[in-house]
Amino acid sequence: MASPSVLTPQAEDFPRWYQDVVAKAEMADNGPVRGTMVIRPYGYAIWERMQAEMDARIKETGAQNAYFPLFIPESYFHREAEHVEGFSPELAVVTFAGGEELAEPIVVRPTSETVIGEFMAKWIQSYRDLPLLLNQWSNVVRWELRPRLFLRSSEFLWQEGHTAHATYADAAGYALRIHLEVYNDFLEKVLAVPTYLGIKPPSERFAGAINTMTAEGMMRDGKALQMATSHELGQNFAKAFDVYYQSEEGQAALCWTTSWGASTRLVGGLIMAHGDDAGLVVPPNLAPIQVVVVAVRDEPEVNGACEKVAAALKASGVRVQVDRGRGSFGRRVTDWEIKGVPIRVEVGPRDLAQGLVSLVRRDDGAKVQVGVDAVASEVPGMLAAMQSDIFDGARKRLLDSTFDVANVAEAMEAATTGFARLPWSAVGEAGEAQLKTEAITVRCLQRKDGSIPVSDTEDGLDCIVAKSY
Amino acid sequence: MASPSVLTPQAEDFPRWYQDVVAKAEMADNGPVRGTMVIRPYGYAIWERMQAEMDARIKETGAQNAYFPLFIPESYFHREAEHVEGFSPELAVVTFAGGEELAEPIVVRPTSETVIGEFMAKWIQSYRDLPLLLNQWSNVVRWELRPRLFLRSSEFLWQEGHTAHATYADAAGYALRIHLEVYNDFLEKVLAVPTYLGIKPPSERFAGAINTMTAEGMMRDGKALQMATSHELGQNFAKAFDVYYQSEEGQAALCWTTSWGASTRLVGGLIMAHGDDAGLVVPPNLAPIQVVVVAVRDEPEVNGACEKVAAALKASGVRVQVDRGRGSFGRRVTDWEIKGVPIRVEVGPRDLAQGLVSLVRRDDGAKVQVGVDAVASEVPGMLAAMQSDIFDGARKRLLDSTFDVANVAEAMEAATTGFARLPWSAVGEAGEAQLKTEAITVRCLQRKDGSIPVSDTEDGLDCIVAKSY
Repeated sequence: MASPSVLTPQAEDFPRWYQDVVAKAEMADNGPVRGTMVIRPYGYAIWERMQAEMDARIKETGAQNAYFPLFIPESYFHREAEHVEGFSPELAVVTFAGGEELAEPIVVRPTSETVIGEFMAKWIQSYRDLPLLLNQWSNVVRWELRPRLFLRSSEFLWQEGHTAHATYADAAGYALRIHLEVYNDFLEKVLAVPTYLGIKPPSERFAGAINTMTAEGMMRDGKALQMATSHELGQNFAKAFDVYYQSEEGQAALCWTTSWGASTRLVGGLIMAHGDDAGLVVPPNLAPIQVVVVAVRDEPEVNGACEKVAAALKASGVRVQVDRGRGSFGRRVTDWEIKGVPIRVEVGPRDLAQGLVSLVRRDDGAKVQVGVDAVASEVPGMLAAMQSDIFDGARKRLLDSTFDVANVAEAMEAATTGFARLPWSAVGEAGEAQLKTEAITVRCLQRKDGSIPVSDTEDGLDCIVAKSY
Repeated sequence: MASPSVLTPQAEDFPRWYQDVVAKAEMADNGPVRGTMVIRPYGYAIWERMQAEMDARIKETGAQNAYFPLFIPESYFHREAEHVEGFSPELAVVTFAGGEELAEPIVVRPTSETVIGEFMAKWIQSYRDLPLLLNQWSNVVRWELRPRLFLRSSEFLWQEGHTAHATYADAAGYALRIHLEVYNDFLEKVLAVPTYLGIKPPSERFAGAINTMTAEGMMRDGKALQMATSHELGQNFAKAFDVYYQSEEGQAALCWTTSWGASTRLVGGLIMAHGDDAGLVVPPNLAPIQVVVVAVRDEPEVNGACEKVAAALKASGVRVQVDRGRGSFGRRVTDWEIKGVPIRVEVGPRDLAQGLVSLVRRDDGAKVQVGVDAVASEVPGMLAAMQSDIFDGARKRLLDSTFDVANVAEAMEAATTGFARLPWSAVGEAGEAQLKTEAITVRCLQRKDGSIPVSDTEDGLDCIVAKSY
């Protein structure tokens, strides 16, 4: 475990711990323009793994990647009334380009519903063109007054999916499929973060949506983080951008659209959902480096054994890196713990003389000695066990820190340490206002069985209430 | 081959042909803000393949991906005198954000030397931190008054590599390695585009560089396209951003930096280097769809055979798509030819009754019949042959249309149909000015043996002179 001086302990100051991890694990730095972020190679490698896993799932649903412009005419934002109201305070605006003042100001995209709506209208002619399933990986800008690396930054990276459908049912069904088969599958199987799935209350919906699905994870301090959202946009954007199709019967009909996104905020979620006082804990299925083979000393025989072990692991499909023995062993171990690499193989001259090396798990610190030639056969099982242990641990924390309560006052008490669950009918608009006085919000509405409601007007819904990032 | 009415013939109007291909192959559309571009799914799938191939090569050289902010303080551009002079006319500037006028205007990055220089200075302490090898995939903005999709757009996608080294030799050697092992290897083996490799004359260098290497490909109209560039930045940016390191001897020393980039312009190069009057011709190693299996008619038996053939090809590692028999067969064939898919497998009921299907090569139209069960074993060899034939054809055109001449007047004549090669000493600054009166430029300087010079001051250099995109 890292020496106490390296990172502020979580119990002492969780936000400070988070900052320390981001800095010491070399994940990111603040950019020179307020709220912007430099994603350093290790942080970016984690994001690339997230991209690869989500991208494969997105393509599996039939969506295709495309790219739409960063710059959107300001006038586009005024076509959907709720949308412009929601985003206006966060916009960055280009007024000067190519050496002169622009006639119409240009908005740097905060999200792309508007410009994509414009092109859907152009590309969609008939029912045969539907559904139109698009996704883009890009940067977006939302001016941020209280920035925090990964969690709230003025520029962030994300994917945003945008689809058009012939019917409400097809649109709603596809959005639900994305929410479950892309986001929830990724969150559970790769990121190892269990969440509460549900819909946002009307007050927290995406600007312009008729329904927003969310996945709310619990961070180690008991606060919630929204991991991904999927929106049913109804016909609001289709109306605003004239996205019509000719039906099989030859009638012009308005499309139903959806949008859905997940961002570099997930890196913040990774840190806070699994990290401990020694630093990051990266689930093996996500980890860009699953195993680091660490030479205890910088000796030819030791380094040679490290390379041999790494080659065997690589051949077994493990993502592996070698740390040759330059500099203090203890310090290098601390650094790899801060980076959260799942398994550390320690190769020292004394053990090696007996044909042995040590395998150390990052999550629980368990250490076992195995024969040099057994590493490649032992590691895959250890990685799989660790993946499921990390998920189980996170689920236990989520369940243990979710408190069933009866009213808003009790929910406010529970939200000081975790999540509260109570009947949505016990909250309502007045309750939401009361919760907000303590910076607590309704994170999502769920059915009693934990499934995702179709609408906030369903009878007998529960809600999950918490402080959040 | 496509009917003449679909695309303007190259010989009639090459720029118009290009526009037609971009539109009809559904590669891209103009965005709503002047000069911006919407990259449609098929164009983006080609770009994703380019990214994957270049990214693997970049990582092979030891560079790591990172991400730096879109927004750069305007003041940064003023620290390197040539850099600001070169880029000022093309900058887009944010003056308003978060609901208020900004105290310092923010530049939307046209390239990232400045902001990355700032962070290199922060991250580099000692010689042990060198070389620092970074790459980023991102969008950049350079305001464009005469935009053309992919070739010149106000926003484009690219990778930009940025590295810092302890010595001139290490920096120059690494830039050369990138130029040969990343760019030229990708261009030759994947894009199938042979180029002239060389250095830019001083007048055409990147703003702030001491040396710029280029790879100049020949388009089908005889004009040149710069496919990728690698810059030695000397100590110019290191000085401007205080990028110092402590040497092994404990002395503070300035770093030597490089930068290198390739962009979505390569998609334009792909179209114009290989395309013909029937549309795109995509080399198999690049193609997102290497084989399309086309049902001649929408019949269960035919569609079933298509799926079977596709499954066998997929199992052989071929990127394949099925076109079930909806709509006119002729029209679908034309569309796949426009998209340049390397091999078309035609599955018709009559052939199928004999157990046969037809394989058609996109480049030369050659058609062979093979047994249904032989497709998966025939196709890989056909794809490989096609890849090398496309490269050989492009090389023949490059060599046949490069004319050795003695002086500027002859070069101007030769540049009306292709490239001219002549002694650099026969051109000089006055010659460059004369060439520019006809929109002709010195594309690169080479040694007599075609290798890349270290400097424009080497004796006995040739230069390649051409009109260009």
